[in-house]
Amino acid sequence: MVDKALGGAGLRGQVAGETALCTVGKSGSGLTYCGYDISELADKVEFEEVSYLLSRGELPNQSQLDAYKAKLKTLRGLPAALKTVLESIPKSAHPMDVMRTGCSMLGNLEMETDFSDVNDHIDRMVAVFPSIICYWYRFSHDGVRVDVETNDDSIGAHFLHLLHDKAPSELFAKVMNVSLILYAEHEFNASTFTARVCASTLSDVHSCVTGAIGSLRGPLHGGANEAAMEMIENFTSADQAEEALMGMLERKEKIMGFGHAIYRESDPRNVIIKKWSELLAKEVGDDVLYPVSVRCEEVMWREKKLFCNADFFHASAYHFMGIPTALFTPIFVMSRVTGWTAHVKEQRANNRIIRPSADYTGPEAREVPPISAR
Amino acid sequence: MVDKALGGAGLRGQVAGETALCTVGKSGSGLTYCGYDISELADKVEFEEVSYLLSRGELPNQSQLDAYKAKLKTLRGLPAALKTVLESIPKSAHPMDVMRTGCSMLGNLEMETDFSDVNDHIDRMVAVFPSIICYWYRFSHDGVRVDVETNDDSIGAHFLHLLHDKAPSELFAKVMNVSLILYAEHEFNASTFTARVCASTLSDVHSCVTGAIGSLRGPLHGGANEAAMEMIENFTSADQAEEALMGMLERKEKIMGFGHAIYRESDPRNVIIKKWSELLAKEVGDDVLYPVSVRCEEVMWREKKLFCNADFFHASAYHFMGIPTALFTPIFVMSRVTGWTAHVKEQRANNRIIRPSADYTGPEAREVPPISAR
Repeated sequence: MVDKALGGAGLRGQVAGETALCTVGKSGSGLTYCGYDISELADKVEFEEVSYLLSRGELPNQSQLDAYKAKLKTLRGLPAALKTVLESIPKSAHPMDVMRTGCSMLGNLEMETDFSDVNDHIDRMVAVFPSIICYWYRFSHDGVRVDVETNDDSIGAHFLHLLHDKAPSELFAKVMNVSLILYAEHEFNASTFTARVCASTLSDVHSCVTGAIGSLRGPLHGGANEAAMEMIENFTSADQAEEALMGMLERKEKIMGFGHAIYRESDPRNVIIKKWSELLAKEVGDDVLYPVSVRCEEVMWREKKLFCNADFFHASAYHFMGIPTALFTPIFVMSRVTGWTAHVKEQRANNRIIRPSADYTGPEAREVPPISAR
Repeated sequence: MVDKALGGAGLRGQVAGETALCTVGKSGSGLTYCGYDISELADKVEFEEVSYLLSRGELPNQSQLDAYKAKLKTLRGLPAALKTVLESIPKSAHPMDVMRTGCSMLGNLEMETDFSDVNDHIDRMVAVFPSIICYWYRFSHDGVRVDVETNDDSIGAHFLHLLHDKAPSELFAKVMNVSLILYAEHEFNASTFTARVCASTLSDVHSCVTGAIGSLRGPLHGGANEAAMEMIENFTSADQAEEALMGMLERKEKIMGFGHAIYRESDPRNVIIKKWSELLAKEVGDDVLYPVSVRCEEVMWREKKLFCNADFFHASAYHFMGIPTALFTPIFVMSRVTGWTAHVKEQRANNRIIRPSADYTGPEAREVPPISAR
């Protein structure tokens, strides 16, 4: 493969570095974190164990997990200056802009001055991100200053508690746990690659994560579950969904939540979240959104051989748990921060500044004309 | 060149896309913006003309330039919520973290909702960045709320005015102008590549610039002029500088401000800023820092065949103008925002999401052990 093949093609299929963290589309079900299959992780462990795995390299034993979770609980509080910033952000803001600004502000208040402390900063971000988004959301939308220092056992439960002012059911907490596991890590996707490019300048971890949030904000990256929700909530029944979808396909409209840049036959995360969405539908007594979602999956496969990616059944699952659509992508941040920061550490450990070249397509060399001659 | 060559090597020499904005190390003096040689631009035009060139594709005529500068003047003000955020950032913060947070907050208050308005957002950032850094700096260091809406003719003069509470001399304003031109654009450097990766997800322009600021913050990228300043301000004479430098070389210490990832024989920006540094030295009556700098240049070339890059004589030049060392890299931001945003537009115009692959070096597939067995 020659240089030219890269031009304008988004580096697709080009190796830009090494990682020990993840394989995508390579083995078994197609997604592994540190050698562990995603379906096994989603079935058997807590998100905090995955977070520990990504930051420490191995799954924790019981006492390590207990200590880690206890530490995270102590890190949920917001500094006063960060609250001031969040209260200054209007209700109309994009929640991903709030996450980006909250993370950036945190870097001003708790600067990473020594790379040897990076795990402390990572733990802090993992613990405090739900507080950041919920504090802003509840303040700007409900006018309340929510107490973010809950005693919930998990990050997922903490998030739902802040959002709804009450501790979640066991099922809801379990689904949040699974969802956070599914989104935690995905090799050199655009936001992770952003974090690595930033890390390659030896910048601080808050800069890396702030940049990654900005990339995840893009509609071609994060946000597909929000777009899926906006589509399916318009459908009133499975039959009507099929009719509408056929029309959209005929008009060649973009349909979000299907297909993937790397996976070719299926997204291993879909079967997992689909099962949980079905359970939630039963729990909340839904007989529209889940059947609509299933029909969309059937139609897209039948008509286009396109499969649901991780995002599609996340839309209904989050909706059943009462999560506002605008907060779907911030949940992605709460999860993926574990992957991003693991990549930051990996980049630092074997670093060369990421500085590619470009093919020049601009004007030939020319003289600057005097302004009167322009 | 095969895929493998990329692994861990920072994509060096690999083409990651196309650009019509810039050539580095290719023609004549080695740096062109839209076909114009950097030395001609630095000699003949204002920074605002370069900013216009990068955002509009051509140099402005007189009426275009007048209208553009008039527009920029109206965009210097800070929204109240942004002032609140800047006042919440402590004096001890890293000025690049302040720039990153200020830019991110701006995106909450003035969101880019439609790509067709991008030039308005770019103009706003170009105009307001000096206000952001100076408002925070003066508030946190001097306890004053500086009025950022000055009537200064140029961005460089506006910056110096806010910093020093008085309009700068003609010479100082001219040197700022030249400096901003020299730093405006540099092809696919790490911060610009960060902006392009972010843009490739179709994220908003504030996310792209926020991410780029985070990458420029890294000591391997921006900040070399700050490191150069910290070195040369310790030297008391040219002879003492030579002696100290020889010791540093012997101890293989890292010396910032010399050599370059792309340029092999010289950095075309050095001869330009060096001339202005010499003029400033005469103006302010310096007989230490400039001779020290010249001696460092001689020693590094004689001993290591390493040439000064753009950063080295910027250190003394900024210092002669009374600019605190901590603000050197934020000036880089005030300038490079023009290049970053031009690349964002270019990426959007011919986009594919930037999503490279990785070589996997991690554990083989393994089963999740029960927690009691770990």
